[in-house]
Amino acid sequence: MLEQLKQQVYEANMELTKLKLVSFTWGNVSGIDRKAGCFVIKPSGVEYERLQPSDLVVVNMDGQVVEGKLNPSSDTPTHLVLYKKFADIGGIAHTHSPWAVSFATAGRDIPVMNTTHADTFYGDIPVSRQLTKKEVESGYEKNTGNVIVETFKNRNLANNQVKGIVVRQHGPFTWGDDPLEAVYNAKVLETVAEMDYHTLNLNPDALKLEKYLLNKHYLRKHGASAYYGQN
Amino acid sequence: MLEQLKQQVYEANMELTKLKLVSFTWGNVSGIDRKAGCFVIKPSGVEYERLQPSDLVVVNMDGQVVEGKLNPSSDTPTHLVLYKKFADIGGIAHTHSPWAVSFATAGRDIPVMNTTHADTFYGDIPVSRQLTKKEVESGYEKNTGNVIVETFKNRNLANNQVKGIVVRQHGPFTWGDDPLEAVYNAKVLETVAEMDYHTLNLNPDALKLEKYLLNKHYLRKHGASAYYGQN
Amino acid sequence: MLEQLKQQVYEANMELTKLKLVSFTWGNVSGIDRKAGCFVIKPSGVEYERLQPSDLVVVNMDGQVVEGKLNPSSDTPTHLVLYKKFADIGGIAHTHSPWAVSFATAGRDIPVMNTTHADTFYGDIPVSRQLTKKEVESGYEKNTGNVIVETFKNRNLANNQVKGIVVRQHGPFTWGDDPLEAVYNAKVLETVAEMDYHTLNLNPDALKLEKYLLNKHYLRKHGASAYYGQN
Amino acid sequence: MLEQLKQQVYEANMELTKLKLVSFTWGNVSGIDRKAGCFVIKPSGVEYERLQPSDLVVVNMDGQVVEGKLNPSSDTPTHLVLYKKFADIGGIAHTHSPWAVSFATAGRDIPVMNTTHADTFYGDIPVSRQLTKKEVESGYEKNTGNVIVETFKNRNLANNQVKGIVVRQHGPFTWGDDPLEAVYNAKVLETVAEMDYHTLNLNPDALKLEKYLLNKHYLRKHGASAYYGQN
Repeated sequence: MLEQLKQQVYEANMELTKLKLVSFTWGNVSGIDRKAGCFVIKPSGVEYERLQPSDLVVVNMDGQVVEGKLNPSSDTPTHLVLYKKFADIGGIAHTHSPWAVSFATAGRDIPVMNTTHADTFYGDIPVSRQLTKKEVESGYEKNTGNVIVETFKNRNLANNQVKGIVVRQHGPFTWGDDPLEAVYNAKVLETVAEMDYHTLNLNPDALKLEKYLLNKHYLRKHGASAYYGQN
Repeated sequence: MLEQLKQQVYEANMELTKLKLVSFTWGNVSGIDRKAGCFVIKPSGVEYERLQPSDLVVVNMDGQVVEGKLNPSSDTPTHLVLYKKFADIGGIAHTHSPWAVSFATAGRDIPVMNTTHADTFYGDIPVSRQLTKKEVESGYEKNTGNVIVETFKNRNLANNQVKGIVVRQHGPFTWGDDPLEAVYNAKVLETVAEMDYHTLNLNPDALKLEKYLLNKHYLRKHGASAYYGQN
Repeated sequence: MLEQLKQQVYEANMELTKLKLVSFTWGNVSGIDRKAGCFVIKPSGVEYERLQPSDLVVVNMDGQVVEGKLNPSSDTPTHLVLYKKFADIGGIAHTHSPWAVSFATAGRDIPVMNTTHADTFYGDIPVSRQLTKKEVESGYEKNTGNVIVETFKNRNLANNQVKGIVVRQHGPFTWGDDPLEAVYNAKVLETVAEMDYHTLNLNPDALKLEKYLLNKHYLRKHGASAYYGQN
Repeated sequence: MLEQLKQQVYEANMELTKLKLVSFTWGNVSGIDRKAGCFVIKPSGVEYERLQPSDLVVVNMDGQVVEGKLNPSSDTPTHLVLYKKFADIGGIAHTHSPWAVSFATAGRDIPVMNTTHADTFYGDIPVSRQLTKKEVESGYEKNTGNVIVETFKNRNLANNQVKGIVVRQHGPFTWGDDPLEAVYNAKVLETVAEMDYHTLNLNPDALKLEKYLLNKHYLRKHGASAYYGQN
């Protein structure tokens, strides 16, 4: 079932390694077929160089495996929460890319300071709060999803404008219309984290983008008045 | 038309990826034929691994496409201003290379502190001012070109001696006698930004080059008394 | 003798270069056959690109070469001490990977601040004390092993939960159930050192993981209640 | 003439690119035949990917080209001074490798803080003073050599124990018994500069190696009592 989606999810997982966003088995990408009510996700702990499309696992919206011989990613409950609460997303990527993890661990947002950031993310990329002991011990992965959703709610962020977050002391989750866009956003997040790190060392008082420049760059690539690219 | 120039511009664009100056579609190179009154530029949003010489777009000095099926780079109006105001340049490169973007975002010049810098740039590489709301909303890309020209004028810089700038909160533009030199200068700019970052962390009071050493290195590679290389 | 172990040790040594943990001949991996009472180790000063499985040296628990034409690694006495005192380990890796050496030289532990660390190391990765003049001059490599063991004893650390250390002003030693796990741990150590460096620059007061999150991540990959992967 | 030496110098130059120590044409390696009273050096400004052994230039001890159609490296007078004053060296390498340039530009020695450094360099790698206006304007490259020699003399350093220097605001020169050792030393210098940079950021008061540990590591690889490797 869902052979085309499996192929997409497979290619998006492999793209993680091409973009040097993962070491070993760290990271996973999924993609959803909302009509079928299922998503396809990387199996847990399988090395990318051995991964085959047929290894991918199909999971339904109750979090149950409906196809596949392997265990799905241990982060599957996080993906499930995000698919339920962010109704318009089609793919999710999770990595331990080092610049993103550094911001996550420092407990700092990745501030929108330059146009590379504004071209993809319409504002700061937030860092979540820490999970409580209770949240970790009673459904850690599910509660990771919940704290992501909570962060977007509390900060009044639109998940289709800022398509990523760094989970405190953990790492980045990104999403998109499809699995490949989620991976693209993971790479942009990592890149702007690196840029912001060096910027803040060069000038701790460096300014965020003015709203008018943020609008200009974000909207020349997104929405009805976009004029970047060939569409 | 302009088949030879297209080939040059194509190769210069591909060089951006070989030198690891661009991710995805970020960046563009153009080259001008001043007799024909046209320049050739990368199409907007096309991935480098799919780019063909025939995809390149020919634009005239009114900014109108005169050949090519694809939209030209969204930065085309910036290139146009630079070709008009910097009458002796033959090629332009724009990237989002991370060290250059970090200086651009920190709002700091890339100071001439070592001979690697002096071999190519005859002084500090300037950072521009921020664009105003009005400038962004009324012809952003054109005004990006204008602010580059303004910076060179206000600082009394010769565009054929310092062949690059970092645009505030945006990134580097470099130029040269031809498209390939523009890309070469983009790589040097990125390299000296990296060196200066680490130098300033090791010694915040590190000195700029004395004028006599700047002269020595710049002039052994440029001008009538150059003695570097085989010419 | 020990042909299968030699092959494993050979592959683990080659993995050091694939993971970019070594330059030139810096680094070595060994593996032990406890029933045979021997371990297999890289010969001293041999370049990885010329290394053959048949070059590996077999050493007994008195530190004497029992097979092999080449001199064993100069660090052989360190490996010997670790195999004797850490009775449950099957392989050891030593590198001069740059982030690990930087922590070693700064004299700082690599603190457990994020889940990437907790997935593999159950707590801070300790830095050892400096060796004394006497220790260096009377059996340097053996005493390097002794100071590693002393560090684990003084800090009350379990060598099967924290499978690595940075030796002061020297570099990392890691170990595991087999040679390949030792190399895996060397890569994780290097990666989390890099992350911690940037984290501490972003936020000098960044927190360590709470014990409950450390437990969660370590124990989802290790021990009876592990649920990561396919076992 | 000197075909074997040309091949060695060619291979050492190409090694610079394999070790990622040079961009473009920046850098050069030479090797000397003391009996013949000539040294072989890279031609000026020739790209490494086009370099052929037959392009190399033979220069005598008066600095005159005695074979070769191309101009020798513009740094040839620096090499000449070093060959004259450091009577026991067989090869010289010069690069603009970024970590080394950063220390050179910051005006800081590369301190001997860890064993990776001590394995190759028997003490701090010095930074030279700035050249005066007169020195730059009257024989810049020759005076670069002179200031290197002066630094070793003033600091009482043995050029066969510390086989490298960073020239102030310029970059590293390293040497060795043959051209390949000079390149090896260039890579070690770059590596320990990177390590020291991060160490000093982690701990500005990090200690240098005690003399007894410096002796141990340097002398286990060099001199009569060396026991590293297969000799």
